[in-house]
Amino acid sequence: MNENKEFVKDLTDMEVDFAKWYTDIILKAELVDYAPVKGFMVIRPYGYALWENIQAVLDKKFKETGHKNAYFPLLIPESLLNKEKEHVEGFAPEVAWVTQGGENPLNERLCIRPTSETIICTMYAKWVKTHKDLPVLLNQWANVVRWEKTTRPFLRTSEFLWQEGHTLHATAQEAQEETLKIHQLYADFCKEYLAMPVIMGQKSEKEKFAGAEATYTVEALMHDGKALQSATSHYFGNHFAKAFDIKFQDKDGKMQYCYQTSWGISTRIIGGIIMTHGDNRGLKLPPRIAPTQVVIVPIAQHKEGVLEKVAELEQKLKVHFRVESDTRKECSPGYKFNDWELRGVPVRIEIGPKDIENQECILFRRDTLEKEKVSLDELEKRVATLLEEIQENMYHMAEENMKKHTYVAKSLEEYTQIFDEKQGYVKMMWCGCRECEDKIKELTSSTIRCIPFEEEKLDTKCAICGKEAKHMVYTARQY
Amino acid sequence: MNENKEFVKDLTDMEVDFAKWYTDIILKAELVDYAPVKGFMVIRPYGYALWENIQAVLDKKFKETGHKNAYFPLLIPESLLNKEKEHVEGFAPEVAWVTQGGENPLNERLCIRPTSETIICTMYAKWVKTHKDLPVLLNQWANVVRWEKTTRPFLRTSEFLWQEGHTLHATAQEAQEETLKIHQLYADFCKEYLAMPVIMGQKSEKEKFAGAEATYTVEALMHDGKALQSATSHYFGNHFAKAFDIKFQDKDGKMQYCYQTSWGISTRIIGGIIMTHGDNRGLKLPPRIAPTQVVIVPIAQHKEGVLEKVAELEQKLKVHFRVESDTRKECSPGYKFNDWELRGVPVRIEIGPKDIENQECILFRRDTLEKEKVSLDELEKRVATLLEEIQENMYHMAEENMKKHTYVAKSLEEYTQIFDEKQGYVKMMWCGCRECEDKIKELTSSTIRCIPFEEEKLDTKCAICGKEAKHMVYTARQY
Repeated sequence: MNENKEFVKDLTDMEVDFAKWYTDIILKAELVDYAPVKGFMVIRPYGYALWENIQAVLDKKFKETGHKNAYFPLLIPESLLNKEKEHVEGFAPEVAWVTQGGENPLNERLCIRPTSETIICTMYAKWVKTHKDLPVLLNQWANVVRWEKTTRPFLRTSEFLWQEGHTLHATAQEAQEETLKIHQLYADFCKEYLAMPVIMGQKSEKEKFAGAEATYTVEALMHDGKALQSATSHYFGNHFAKAFDIKFQDKDGKMQYCYQTSWGISTRIIGGIIMTHGDNRGLKLPPRIAPTQVVIVPIAQHKEGVLEKVAELEQKLKVHFRVESDTRKECSPGYKFNDWELRGVPVRIEIGPKDIENQECILFRRDTLEKEKVSLDELEKRVATLLEEIQENMYHMAEENMKKHTYVAKSLEEYTQIFDEKQGYVKMMWCGCRECEDKIKELTSSTIRCIPFEEEKLDTKCAICGKEAKHMVYTARQY
Repeated sequence: MNENKEFVKDLTDMEVDFAKWYTDIILKAELVDYAPVKGFMVIRPYGYALWENIQAVLDKKFKETGHKNAYFPLLIPESLLNKEKEHVEGFAPEVAWVTQGGENPLNERLCIRPTSETIICTMYAKWVKTHKDLPVLLNQWANVVRWEKTTRPFLRTSEFLWQEGHTLHATAQEAQEETLKIHQLYADFCKEYLAMPVIMGQKSEKEKFAGAEATYTVEALMHDGKALQSATSHYFGNHFAKAFDIKFQDKDGKMQYCYQTSWGISTRIIGGIIMTHGDNRGLKLPPRIAPTQVVIVPIAQHKEGVLEKVAELEQKLKVHFRVESDTRKECSPGYKFNDWELRGVPVRIEIGPKDIENQECILFRRDTLEKEKVSLDELEKRVATLLEEIQENMYHMAEENMKKHTYVAKSLEEYTQIFDEKQGYVKMMWCGCRECEDKIKELTSSTIRCIPFEEEKLDTKCAICGKEAKHMVYTARQY
């Protein structure tokens, strides 16, 4: 027990300093490290394994819905970036520029893609000729660079990994349907795999993607009551098609502009997982995406038969689960317990000579910290149900947290008071004007996270200016 | 038949112009397209699916041999690149430089990684402390940029995709073993999955990787008799460890430098697949990595029951194979046959009203262009064995080609005469000196591909200078 404390004290309590808690976890659990260039991160094997599991699930879902993967170049000529006015205004200030290739200065600067609309549109204009070529449903897994001033690993980094889907359609309706289909896919993924409850909705004009007609967002609430934009889907109308001349011949032989979408989720979501579920012992990973679902820790491993039993169990469980055994000689069981709790492994199996004699072992669950005894005959079955229970319980714990941190404001006074004292979602009525949006940001640093699909009629008037309300919105301070 | 010719004539014959044949195939089979920036490529869905299949197999093999994936930053400060002298001399002339981030010029130029030794070594120096931290066995799937003057899609492009493994070991012997283990893994992969026979061996001093102590290469011979370096594994000794100060405390408490390896295979291998197997009808893909293994083409698809049968077969075969049905109304069966031959799909199923009546269908194999009738009851079983037969036969066809294009030279005269008339591997004895190596390049544009593991004693004297021979080598003109 002493040892436990010894070890855990290295982790800052989240109630004391949430930012420090976050940094402690990502470094100590070896998810990530700082790179030699400011703002860049190294994703270490444990963090990357999380990303691989996320990729595997999403890639399957994208393919099941008819999308194929492709790869477009890293570098984009400045002239292409400049083609869509709103887009370049949004991105130009934060791109990295390549000005020299090999021994020679370049005639035209190339930017490292901050996102790939402009390069992909250029190719689409070349590929699409008739309605038979539509829809085009492509996705790309790639790295992008955005020169950020304030960075934090996973949450905001100058380089990050993501997927970006880019689709072309014959009609506005089809493109809108695609945007919403993927929006739903992201929300389902967050709920079912990451155990993250989310709010689905549309971004305000101010907050939407540079160049989009509409942006839909999946918003999650972190443990400290701040919101995280977790995945976005954009409907472009035919803005980009017009700028890049992406036309097709319709069934009547007439030339038409295509309608377009793009959508993405990034390594940022790993920050979301950490801050949704983690506690003062460290990470807490949802079983469905945990790199290790079960860790086996031997007790008195020097005793005869213990390590053999551990190896036997690992072999048996490996068929169904992602399992590891921790047989390090130089560490005590207590040290190992802490280590794997820090790493957020959902289930721990403890087994020693006594347990083996009784044909049983102890199961420890990371979400509630509870222990139970289970007969070795029942082990596989119990681990399977336990992982499901943990997955579900983690969702409910996160949902509880979200509910606890959701408030209603009916006046500016109420609104500012909430953010003076608390962190969380605030539901309020909004007139729809930019002035009110700017005002809450100025006064409280909070922003409109989204106009949710499920609006409640809290009032008839805007909470900020008192004019007629158009929408209910969720606001929050954000990452 | 007419239609066949109509279609195929668009493809340049490889005997007429091999380079044009290659370009025709990659563009018409929609593997790739040219990007707006010279030397960069867009990998289209069909080409990317090939890469995904390659990735899936290799990734599994790397993990089975204890390696884990991680991700290191895209951008490397100039000062880091400069740390290992030979390495920077090799790479500096071909890197792209970022000089501006957002609105501001950078204090120090950053290069886009041409390979990641320098950034990874920097992190390893931070992570490794004692012998317990060793070995470190990491791999990265990433894009890299090398500013090439002459480019050709897949074979040599300014940006390409690859994997780069980077490992650290306590002893030279362990690192050497790792290098050779991966070298063997690559060779097995090429043989078993890509149906490519390869020569395994060591690069000469002149041809080895910049900064390596030894480079091992897997060399394949293309249809035109030119060689392609397909995958390389490097043993670094402790050169990089010394430059980057990667030290560990050994069991006796003494500080030691680590020994290191790196190894990689890239999208270049796709060019190798095309040029090893393709013919004048187009691509020919090895079944184990073909994105589509079986295509079903209906005959008289407007007739009752045909499309239903096609759908039924697709459902049944999909459980075991990667299958597609081509039910395009606007194309004739003949057009479709050519289209899928061009795309290199190993097996085609043809089925029409008559076949359905007889409970049979026709199987066409892309490798030999032969057809056979098979009962629908036997279909799954026959497709499975046929795919295996094709995989094996493609290997043998490629091996035959390699044998046919392998020559022996015992004098400079014989040597130059071979390259005046032919293309292929030349086996010869070599004294080991740089002068002879430079001479054959100057006279014939051929280079030493490798010193093979299995040397034959062709003679006692160097074929070029007549001095005492040290090694037998394979030489060739190369991609």
